[in-house]
Amino acid sequence: MKFSKIPEATIRRLSNYARCLEEMGKKGRTVISSASLASMCGVNAAQVRKDLAYFGEFGIRGVGYYIKDLHEDIKNILGLNKKWRMAIIGIGNLGSSLLSYKDFLKKNYTIVAAFDIHPEKVIGPISEKMGRPVEILHPSRLKEVVKERKIEIGLITTPPSEAQKVADALVDAGVRGILNFAPTQIHVPEGFIVKNVFFTTILDNLAYILSNKSRKG
Amino acid sequence: MKFSKIPEATIRRLSNYARCLEEMGKKGRTVISSASLASMCGVNAAQVRKDLAYFGEFGIRGVGYYIKDLHEDIKNILGLNKKWRMAIIGIGNLGSSLLSYKDFLKKNYTIVAAFDIHPEKVIGPISEKMGRPVEILHPSRLKEVVKERKIEIGLITTPPSEAQKVADALVDAGVRGILNFAPTQIHVPEGFIVKNVFFTTILDNLAYILSNKSRKG
Repeated sequence: MKFSKIPEATIRRLSNYARCLEEMGKKGRTVISSASLASMCGVNAAQVRKDLAYFGEFGIRGVGYYIKDLHEDIKNILGLNKKWRMAIIGIGNLGSSLLSYKDFLKKNYTIVAAFDIHPEKVIGPISEKMGRPVEILHPSRLKEVVKERKIEIGLITTPPSEAQKVADALVDAGVRGILNFAPTQIHVPEGFIVKNVFFTTILDNLAYILSNKSRKG
Repeated sequence: MKFSKIPEATIRRLSNYARCLEEMGKKGRTVISSASLASMCGVNAAQVRKDLAYFGEFGIRGVGYYIKDLHEDIKNILGLNKKWRMAIIGIGNLGSSLLSYKDFLKKNYTIVAAFDIHPEKVIGPISEKMGRPVEILHPSRLKEVVKERKIEIGLITTPPSEAQKVADALVDAGVRGILNFAPTQIHVPEGFIVKNVFFTTILDNLAYILSNKSRKG
């Protein structure tokens, strides 16, 4: 398996296949055809087979895939056979909504530390929202807490002006994976990974398609 | 210009180029080379030139791009020469954080209507957070309000179990673009577009890269 040669879009689709398989498993189904899996995930069957073929042989000709097995296999491929421990930095509106984001926990991700430059300001409203006290720490403790709590992923939800500084601190603390929600490009040294979640970039994509359709139509 | 042949990744990068150009424009710069633009955006210069080449000739050999002009051109390409009017459905933690998401407004997107099945429950905390009263409407009014307020994009921030129902209502109201934050696949008829924002899918991608690096190293 040459992991580095796999297209990013394949990884993204695998993640969606896992989600669909999980939903179907919950409904009590045990077997699914590549055509059904594809249609649930909004792709075609050839795509499903091609994506899986990067990683070996799955499924049985004429039968399909065993849902539970394929789900486990994909989780292993994606590195989801473990809990990923995350820190979040910047507890404004978005940060506090991610603190209580249910899908993280369901999917092997857990926020084990929260940081804000004004810990005293946010602690009241957050605790209220989460229905339990959440300890918000000052970012000066980042390095120490990352080590103590074995944090591997950092979520940046600060204002854009602070994002690079926070990324530098995460790098310094040895956090190799960053999910950046602050709408600005940040830079990290080789060996560290940043994925951006820019809502407006995705909207731009939607706007482009909608405009294009109008132009054509 | 064959709009439909443009790769989605190109559109995504154009959106990032626009963001970088805007940031640089604010710093008072007027001209930029493709190499500098590329490095700001984390791609290479050939990629920038290739992406732009889909849409015509930009920049001047030996000089680079006029920042303001290129920014305007990209905004025109993406359909951002207008305000996009959006509705948001589901005012829980994530929904309310998006209601006050500053980058939308800066970037031609504006939420003109908010819906929740329990409008009376959310109105207090939201108003507090936004520092101004926000009218939360019952979803039964969706179709009427979409027409009145000329809404073209719907943001779904309900629990996953409600997402398809909300999508159906948006389709019925003629909203052609949907940004789905509910972690489940939704289906819409031809001519309607759904873009998903699944935080865990992006984390899965990060987890995959981090695991893969460990396996190699």
